[in-house]
Amino acid sequence: MPNPLNPAMAHTAASPIVASKSWMDGMTFPPERPLINVSQAAPMEAPPLPLREEIARIVLEDTSAHLYGPVLGLPELREELAHQWSTAYHAGISPPEVAITSGCNEAFTAVMTTIAGPGDEVILATPWYFNHKMWCDMSGVHAVPLPTGDDLLPDLETCARLITPRTRAIVLITPNNPGGVEYPPELLTKFYALAREHRIMLVLDETYRDFDSRSEVPHHLFRQPDWRDTLVHLYSFSKAFRLTGHRVGALITGTDRMVEVEKYLDTVTICPNQIGQRAALWGLRNLSQWVAGERTEILARRAAMIEGFKALQGWKLLGCGAFFAYAEHPFDMPSSEFAPWLLREAGVLLLPGTAFMPQNDPRAERQLRIAFANIGVPEIETLFTRLAQIKP
Amino acid sequence: MPNPLNPAMAHTAASPIVASKSWMDGMTFPPERPLINVSQAAPMEAPPLPLREEIARIVLEDTSAHLYGPVLGLPELREELAHQWSTAYHAGISPPEVAITSGCNEAFTAVMTTIAGPGDEVILATPWYFNHKMWCDMSGVHAVPLPTGDDLLPDLETCARLITPRTRAIVLITPNNPGGVEYPPELLTKFYALAREHRIMLVLDETYRDFDSRSEVPHHLFRQPDWRDTLVHLYSFSKAFRLTGHRVGALITGTDRMVEVEKYLDTVTICPNQIGQRAALWGLRNLSQWVAGERTEILARRAAMIEGFKALQGWKLLGCGAFFAYAEHPFDMPSSEFAPWLLREAGVLLLPGTAFMPQNDPRAERQLRIAFANIGVPEIETLFTRLAQIKP
Repeated sequence: MPNPLNPAMAHTAASPIVASKSWMDGMTFPPERPLINVSQAAPMEAPPLPLREEIARIVLEDTSAHLYGPVLGLPELREELAHQWSTAYHAGISPPEVAITSGCNEAFTAVMTTIAGPGDEVILATPWYFNHKMWCDMSGVHAVPLPTGDDLLPDLETCARLITPRTRAIVLITPNNPGGVEYPPELLTKFYALAREHRIMLVLDETYRDFDSRSEVPHHLFRQPDWRDTLVHLYSFSKAFRLTGHRVGALITGTDRMVEVEKYLDTVTICPNQIGQRAALWGLRNLSQWVAGERTEILARRAAMIEGFKALQGWKLLGCGAFFAYAEHPFDMPSSEFAPWLLREAGVLLLPGTAFMPQNDPRAERQLRIAFANIGVPEIETLFTRLAQIKP
Repeated sequence: MPNPLNPAMAHTAASPIVASKSWMDGMTFPPERPLINVSQAAPMEAPPLPLREEIARIVLEDTSAHLYGPVLGLPELREELAHQWSTAYHAGISPPEVAITSGCNEAFTAVMTTIAGPGDEVILATPWYFNHKMWCDMSGVHAVPLPTGDDLLPDLETCARLITPRTRAIVLITPNNPGGVEYPPELLTKFYALAREHRIMLVLDETYRDFDSRSEVPHHLFRQPDWRDTLVHLYSFSKAFRLTGHRVGALITGTDRMVEVEKYLDTVTICPNQIGQRAALWGLRNLSQWVAGERTEILARRAAMIEGFKALQGWKLLGCGAFFAYAEHPFDMPSSEFAPWLLREAGVLLLPGTAFMPQNDPRAERQLRIAFANIGVPEIETLFTRLAQIKP
């Protein structure tokens, strides 16, 4: 342990992604049984060639793409996002209500720093996204788990009972990471009203919105007259355009909070990287058809996952959508041991439920997250063949 | 004011860079008297063409340059930096002791989060770098100003008297931002010993090391047997290779602290952007001659600044080096008013001392920072012509 050490950091768990990668140290995977890596929502292929060609052109011709830009992001990108989201949500979002960030994780940390400080409470629906929990821990904010049932949907009354005078926000993710479940719009309206009633923020992470299986608008919160006071929307350009390595995300909220967000972003990263922002802008303007095709493919993989689980004895699929399946395994082995065992025995890398649940929740040891969007339908079939054969 | 609002964020000042940009709202600058922007250490030109060509090639050919990479950075870049810094400092720095970050500001916030939490104290030599102060404020850490004299060098005994049981670190910047002064190696050795004696960290920001006017090694701290327990070194790739828009920085410290740094970086940005890291790697491997030429040019600009101040009546140059001159003006107008006045009257944008000093320090209202490295020698001469003519 280093000395001195911020005690909040000492109480923050290591990233389960980093930990799971260490399980592979020294391992090799034979060609006849290659690694199936479903541990992280991480596209394995490059962005489409026209996008890469456009980035290369910018690199050579656009000096400003190498220099500092505005703290809150490229004005054209903020405008384009405001315009497209206004259309998609039948709402009136304006460019000053949009900030571009160095990935969606930074969007979360930026806005949460404006909302909650040490000793405050933030309600996270469980299973949670581990980086949300880690940020709360390292910033001294108490993460209050909001349990969900077998449908992985949060319950309004349960949430209402968790609200105290120290509560500052409710954080929901839809489509959900890790649960894969898509929250019904009516449920989101109720949570919005609950947040508004208590004058706390509703932080809605829609990183996976481009892969929602539903064709209608996913929620009506941007049509609420006072959304700017209560709602924070988070988005990532990483998944739709395969730009995970470029680190470009976004957040939307009212302009009075944006003044505070700007202080944080200026201090932590000065501005988002310029190349990635231009790639995201070109993607928004030119790749909607391509993203629609990607969505169709991801939905086919989702269907293959649902089919696969139907035939897999003893397992229970709790949620499946966007990039993730969240399931219970039937074995008398805690998931924290099962996951590294599965890597060694079956060449499958996934994350145990313990990465997404409070330490004292016994359900975590039955649960697993499978980031299926990284692999094609044939590989999904191979995955189920391997899962059907294991005998822990 | 948004509600709820983290009180620590409410107590954090807005970025002076952002504020100074707002002074330009609605202003135009006639062609015969163009804006001289010396407000920010921000190269105005693109990186050299061979580097841009290499980046374009990577964009088209290297899939991994678009995807997530390791949290602590590209292994080859960590290796190259460890190797080159070991040579430069006559030391034995190993790759696991190096982390690549999304700019040097993130390096600072990451390592400070591992060191100090709310209620702790961190000593910052004044004039300070405003983002260091902002980070302390928003994270609830008390920034303790360490005054310097007319030579802008911190005094060891003064610092020793400021250390309390809550002190966690001393932060020094050399060559200094905003002061431009280069700290003598013996002074740094003494501060290292002081930090070590009190079991606190010495955080040394060497963002501008490539433009040090001295030819010898700038300090011997990496040769201290226990440097890994006491020293943090910060670096930026932005200035040497004109990559400000790419957001790539680095930090060096012991591996036990790096475990904690990794939690922060994973949570805030997941990984540094991949294109920028590859650009930095190519720069380290191929641009040392080019950077040497850049340094020669910056040193010529520095000489022009020193000459210019000699002829400028009433002004006092306190420090001049790296990218910055830090000076006292002779006018009966506080610098916080003088700076926007100067922009309107003379078309010169610079930052007032109030951006770099504690609120209650009266010297701030006499002081100004000039980021001269952005402009060539002829423009520096124009700058002094304008300064000689003003009558506030």
